[in-house]
Amino acid sequence: MTQWVYKFGSGSTEGNAAMKNLLGGKGANLAEMASLGLPVPPGFTITTDLCTAYYAHDKTYPDDLAAQVKDGLAHIEALTGRTFGDAKNPLLVSVRSGARTSMPGMMDTVLNLGLNDETVEGLAELSGDRRFALESYRRFMAMYCDVVLGIHHHVFEDIVNMHKDSRGHVLDTKMQAGDWESVIEDFNAAISRRLGRDFPQDPQEQLRGAINAVFDSWNNERAIIYRRLNDIPAGWGTAVNVQAMVFGNVGNKSATGVAFTRDPSTGSNRYYGEFLINAQGEDVVAGIRTPQTLTREWREEMGEDLPSMEEAMPDVYAELASVFGKLEDHYRDMQDIEFTVERGKLWLLQTRTGKRTARAALRIAVDMAQSGQITKEEAVSRIDPVSLDRLLHPALDESAERDILTVGLPASPGAATGEVVFTSDEAEKLLKAGHKIILVRVETSPEDIHGMHAAEAIITTRGGMTSHAAVVARGMGTPCVAGAGDIRVDSEAQHFIVAGRMIKKGDIVTVDGASGQVLAGAAQMVQPELSGDFAEIMSWADDIRVLGVRANAETPADVRTARDFGAEGIGLCRTEHMFFEADRLGYFREMILAKDRQCRESALAKILPIQTGDFAAIFRIMEDRPCTIRLLDPPLHEFLPHTEDDIASVAESVGMTAFELIAQAKGLAESNPMLGHRGCRLGISYPEIYEMQARAIFAAQKQVEDETGFMPVAEIMIPLVSSDRELEILKNTIARVADEMGSPTYTVGTMIELPRAALRAADIAKHASFFSFGTNDLTQTTFGLSRDDAGNFLPDYIAQGIMAKDPFATLDQDGVGDLISIALKRGRSTNADIKTGICGEHGGDPASIAFCHAQGLNYVSCSPYRVPAARLAAAQAAIGAALR
Amino acid sequence: MTQWVYKFGSGSTEGNAAMKNLLGGKGANLAEMASLGLPVPPGFTITTDLCTAYYAHDKTYPDDLAAQVKDGLAHIEALTGRTFGDAKNPLLVSVRSGARTSMPGMMDTVLNLGLNDETVEGLAELSGDRRFALESYRRFMAMYCDVVLGIHHHVFEDIVNMHKDSRGHVLDTKMQAGDWESVIEDFNAAISRRLGRDFPQDPQEQLRGAINAVFDSWNNERAIIYRRLNDIPAGWGTAVNVQAMVFGNVGNKSATGVAFTRDPSTGSNRYYGEFLINAQGEDVVAGIRTPQTLTREWREEMGEDLPSMEEAMPDVYAELASVFGKLEDHYRDMQDIEFTVERGKLWLLQTRTGKRTARAALRIAVDMAQSGQITKEEAVSRIDPVSLDRLLHPALDESAERDILTVGLPASPGAATGEVVFTSDEAEKLLKAGHKIILVRVETSPEDIHGMHAAEAIITTRGGMTSHAAVVARGMGTPCVAGAGDIRVDSEAQHFIVAGRMIKKGDIVTVDGASGQVLAGAAQMVQPELSGDFAEIMSWADDIRVLGVRANAETPADVRTARDFGAEGIGLCRTEHMFFEADRLGYFREMILAKDRQCRESALAKILPIQTGDFAAIFRIMEDRPCTIRLLDPPLHEFLPHTEDDIASVAESVGMTAFELIAQAKGLAESNPMLGHRGCRLGISYPEIYEMQARAIFAAQKQVEDETGFMPVAEIMIPLVSSDRELEILKNTIARVADEMGSPTYTVGTMIELPRAALRAADIAKHASFFSFGTNDLTQTTFGLSRDDAGNFLPDYIAQGIMAKDPFATLDQDGVGDLISIALKRGRSTNADIKTGICGEHGGDPASIAFCHAQGLNYVSCSPYRVPAARLAAAQAAIGAALR
Repeated sequence: MTQWVYKFGSGSTEGNAAMKNLLGGKGANLAEMASLGLPVPPGFTITTDLCTAYYAHDKTYPDDLAAQVKDGLAHIEALTGRTFGDAKNPLLVSVRSGARTSMPGMMDTVLNLGLNDETVEGLAELSGDRRFALESYRRFMAMYCDVVLGIHHHVFEDIVNMHKDSRGHVLDTKMQAGDWESVIEDFNAAISRRLGRDFPQDPQEQLRGAINAVFDSWNNERAIIYRRLNDIPAGWGTAVNVQAMVFGNVGNKSATGVAFTRDPSTGSNRYYGEFLINAQGEDVVAGIRTPQTLTREWREEMGEDLPSMEEAMPDVYAELASVFGKLEDHYRDMQDIEFTVERGKLWLLQTRTGKRTARAALRIAVDMAQSGQITKEEAVSRIDPVSLDRLLHPALDESAERDILTVGLPASPGAATGEVVFTSDEAEKLLKAGHKIILVRVETSPEDIHGMHAAEAIITTRGGMTSHAAVVARGMGTPCVAGAGDIRVDSEAQHFIVAGRMIKKGDIVTVDGASGQVLAGAAQMVQPELSGDFAEIMSWADDIRVLGVRANAETPADVRTARDFGAEGIGLCRTEHMFFEADRLGYFREMILAKDRQCRESALAKILPIQTGDFAAIFRIMEDRPCTIRLLDPPLHEFLPHTEDDIASVAESVGMTAFELIAQAKGLAESNPMLGHRGCRLGISYPEIYEMQARAIFAAQKQVEDETGFMPVAEIMIPLVSSDRELEILKNTIARVADEMGSPTYTVGTMIELPRAALRAADIAKHASFFSFGTNDLTQTTFGLSRDDAGNFLPDYIAQGIMAKDPFATLDQDGVGDLISIALKRGRSTNADIKTGICGEHGGDPASIAFCHAQGLNYVSCSPYRVPAARLAAAQAAIGAALR
Repeated sequence: MTQWVYKFGSGSTEGNAAMKNLLGGKGANLAEMASLGLPVPPGFTITTDLCTAYYAHDKTYPDDLAAQVKDGLAHIEALTGRTFGDAKNPLLVSVRSGARTSMPGMMDTVLNLGLNDETVEGLAELSGDRRFALESYRRFMAMYCDVVLGIHHHVFEDIVNMHKDSRGHVLDTKMQAGDWESVIEDFNAAISRRLGRDFPQDPQEQLRGAINAVFDSWNNERAIIYRRLNDIPAGWGTAVNVQAMVFGNVGNKSATGVAFTRDPSTGSNRYYGEFLINAQGEDVVAGIRTPQTLTREWREEMGEDLPSMEEAMPDVYAELASVFGKLEDHYRDMQDIEFTVERGKLWLLQTRTGKRTARAALRIAVDMAQSGQITKEEAVSRIDPVSLDRLLHPALDESAERDILTVGLPASPGAATGEVVFTSDEAEKLLKAGHKIILVRVETSPEDIHGMHAAEAIITTRGGMTSHAAVVARGMGTPCVAGAGDIRVDSEAQHFIVAGRMIKKGDIVTVDGASGQVLAGAAQMVQPELSGDFAEIMSWADDIRVLGVRANAETPADVRTARDFGAEGIGLCRTEHMFFEADRLGYFREMILAKDRQCRESALAKILPIQTGDFAAIFRIMEDRPCTIRLLDPPLHEFLPHTEDDIASVAESVGMTAFELIAQAKGLAESNPMLGHRGCRLGISYPEIYEMQARAIFAAQKQVEDETGFMPVAEIMIPLVSSDRELEILKNTIARVADEMGSPTYTVGTMIELPRAALRAADIAKHASFFSFGTNDLTQTTFGLSRDDAGNFLPDYIAQGIMAKDPFATLDQDGVGDLISIALKRGRSTNADIKTGICGEHGGDPASIAFCHAQGLNYVSCSPYRVPAARLAAAQAAIGAALR
């Protein structure tokens, strides 16, 4: 006989915390607490196996279930001394779902089950509170009808509201017993009208209906989508928990509350929580009465008048505090506990790992590891890498008032306050005059780099999480809100309008890149703290991880940040970013507009010393750490001017008419620049550009070696390769330059960022010292999806569950990841020792980092501000892999 | 002992035609002819194995080679009665390369080898012509120095020119024996100066040097690139042919000529050729003297005065004619023969399969199959499918005078004459007025469709072989020259300028889409003939092929053409092409600009009956043949107006201001439309569009079934799928419409045109009845290469051997093909019977069709005019596969 029902409660508990797969998270924890001897209302759990069997057998139950449920009820009756369906001394139960992992709000719950026209009178008698009994009954009827009988809860809310209106009441609490009687009468009428039958009076029938409903809710639409988004297999099923009801609202010796075993906000090791006397859990949520503090210490700190639980119910509080200790020791983590006090008796309704702020998480993990409660590996595993980002930037004080203008996408974390400006030139000018600037643009382009550098924060009205503004801002560590579509910018008039308010140039706004909020005026900030707990956790992570962590950076400021954050090298130095600086953009445009190779070479000769200086600056900071330098990648037209003024001045400086310049720019324009004349295709068409860059790299190496004695480690990376021949030709070009420059030490490798490169990796690896997966472009080409244009429909795609996540943020392992696996297998087949890394945006994403670890890559590379998160995620990947 | 040397010549030939791998094509054929008893100058072939051994052993030879070469020379000496290096009676030889397949001009040749200061006097004596002997010597010296000693031939040409100038001669023939003596003196001085040694006088040393040079030339740069482009493995190596020299320039009983065993121009079964008395092969090429005809029949037809060979040398001609019969019988194909007559004695220097026109190829193949010389399979195999294209369109008369303005890309075959116009509206207007129009545009867009339909031919100044103009023109069968970059269009002034000439609106030009030429004025045309030999070959091909052949078509005219050309179904009906017609573009724009779903549905309701009519027209023509209808694919912004006038009128008709319309168009614009909001992404965002299309398909099916009794076979295709979920959602949408429409018969499948779709094929195939490989987009995404933008650098890529061919014309089997294999394997793993086809441009390319056959696809689909070529190529693929 299969055991479908597991009992819990004083003295006869059959499950435990390890049985989550069978009993669900809630059921397993209730059993665990009962086993620990903690006061848990008795009950039983129907297993997830039954859920699976139910669906496998066309929604029917095995014959032996009824007897087991009956036995379970008898168990509850014995422990509570009440009888299910008894008119005098009725047992009431709750019926709740509970899957392996928490799926909050996705499935159904029924409370107060067992009430009917007779037992409600028994409850009134027992509790001495007829109003309470009747209100419990009407709550049960509405909930049951909604969940089990398919009558929408609005029907019942409307009836309640009509009654309240007719009596002039606003709050439910004003309704008297008689009022609820008439409400229940109307409920009964509405139910009969809709179902052609009365509300079920038989508690056994009620229980069967509720169990069915909970199992059915496993496959409601919300649950299905939630599972898809969270990778939860449909085959897991849910358990059903049937548990005796306890009431915190039967007088002043009753109460209900929630508590944390440590402060979830700072992590400090003291109890935290709140409670309400004579109340139910719903009342805490509804916010009708102000809850009281748990401890005296907190009450005093908060300046509250009402007594803390420690003061109001010292005995129960003492019992609760001892439970805290037991639970934290037992679960080895800070717990979030729901409790009810019924007539002075403490009952625990739930315990689970408590949510906490990023700062608190660090503090708790370090404290518990140092006290020996957990290992360093566990401590490292408990920090959400994404949350670190918030710690590295100034943040808005959470308690500060916010005058929110609009909410866009949280594109780059951190917060900043400054004056609104609408052009990059102005941003730069005002910065020099000592102003703090917030740059507001419809969208940004590479020409805005100087303005973005100058700005404290950036707001765009178009573009997604991976738009130009978002990517560049994250790279710089500058807060950014992207795609704030409600903002209408009028650049002529130098203002923007949002939510009916006009913000003019020079007005002060605050940007919160962590939440996507744009606020009017200035707001209070909290500064980051990088030592202490943070430094401790990072050092543990470094000891554990196998993957290297590098940074994507090119400006000396970013390279310095990267090194300070622990980058072990530069994984992607985008040389084109260097060409947008004012002192060289002119020469670079001269090069692009050159009539022939000779003119081009003369322009390149002017860029050479500047570029040499760029590389030397990077090498100086990185010392003997490897630097992967990607040769010029974007299409040339990106560097040409777009505004009329710019065109006129550029035309003059290169000796063309504006008309000729526009014509040439048109000639260079492309329908799909992402798939155009860029990357190594430029190197093939204009070898002199790559020659100049190689020359600059070698010259910088020599210069820094002479200065410092360190030999800079140059890894030259060829972008957008789709065949071995391209790499071979360009490697030869670089070798020729190297020969002329006295044979410096360097390696040549390639980006794998096109599906064809992945497929042809066996050939390409023969010529490459390393592969760096450029997963941004690889995602674009694998999906046939432009990052810049996807904003229009990607939200729809995620909402409909077509994509679980934004594939530009989290690597698509099924598609793009498959190509990476193919590339690694084929590449290693001809070059077993090839070094491999990833340098797309995904290099900073924890799930993607775990994939990189599993694939045996040598390193990940991400923007400087993500380096700490990547170090942590790499350690977690190693821990996770070791556990499997 | 390995045999490195194979002798040939009267009585003792060791090789034959089957030994091409070992002896190269030339050597094997020389041996074959010698074995047939034909008069071939004696010689020997050094094997390709030796070439391989030479490279494997660091460019050294095995010890036993010298003796074998000596034996070979002795063989030639015995048959010629001359002695190598003998001062009185010298043997001269030619040393030529000869690989398995012809690599014309890629490798080196030395003629007249064996001459030195002594033997030249012997040759003078023997020939009785000292001038001839000295000129032969100076030719040998220059050739030998260039090929073997590394002195550029310009050095020797300069010396000859200086001598000619100083004597006032223009032609070499004016130079006397004494003049050549002084030239040779200067040659010797130049050689000593450069090499520090004299020209090698020892014939044995000369021979060793020449053999080395031929082997070395296997790895010269030209040969390497040629091999890469033609997929010839480096390991094959070349053979070396050493053969006695014969001279056609030793008096009036000597001659040299080339002949074909049938007329290579029409294919008619009569000899064709020309010859020159007292001349060498070079003289025929140099064109200094007019060659004479081979037969009297030809001489009379051409109205020539000089006697034919049949008349001038009747005995030798008779011998040659008997050789023709023998060779054609033996090789079972029309032969192209080189011969020399030395003092009345006929020598054959080469025979090979003769090149022929497309028309001649058909004629010869049919004639030979009908006479039983070859099988039908062989006949089918001998026609180049690509050449058929030319036969299906009017063509320029090859003999006509051409006043060439410029040459662009031969984008769509056929020729046409007409008046130049610069806008599509004007083209349409003038067509109605009875004019024949040539449309000239910088590039075309979907808005030009009506002008392209109206035009006899199309010229664009931008874009490649797969630009919009090229693809659409090929689909329509309209001649097109694309990317004629020398043409400067001035639309304002209504003229274009090219090569310094101005062509005004209304001027007559002729477009030759087969060659890419644009001619001034009208030119003589030849009309296509589709019956006779063509029809015969096509019917044989249909019996042989396994692959189905369908067409990409949507207008009734194109669908009719497709059916006439033998299409067995529609493989791709691009429904968006239908929306550009004037009567519906307005409604479609109304739909795009709709403010909400309701407005969109009201616009769609107006399109529904028109779209139903479109589908009904196709179904009526195709009867019970399957029609694959692709739902809307391109991004919506493609349908919006671009010119100011259009914008104003569209804005008015939908009740917007021009400003609002421009703003909305900007909102829809994309950075990379190819990777944007298109394909099934539109179906997900706006299900009502796909619903309308499904409704139209089902309504048309019903209508045509009622009319004809045939049930049209509708295959509904969802474009740009990247995940199974997209297909599942849209299939459900279509099923819902089908339910409403009385459950018509239809299937739903998908394009596989994104790498991710190929990778996820196992999941996708669960929901698909068919996969149609959209290889245009799959090539774009696999390579990360925009078809519209590749024109800038693709020629460079092909020239440098990075790509063997334009991957948009011939499927890239290594990359894109690999993805197709992966998709087929994975798709069939979950849906063994899935129907598979290809509908990109590659569906009409023979090499790509062979790949499709090998992969076991069910059909290929191509533009209507390519259907015959595809039928033929499919048959050849089946024949080729059976032979393997």
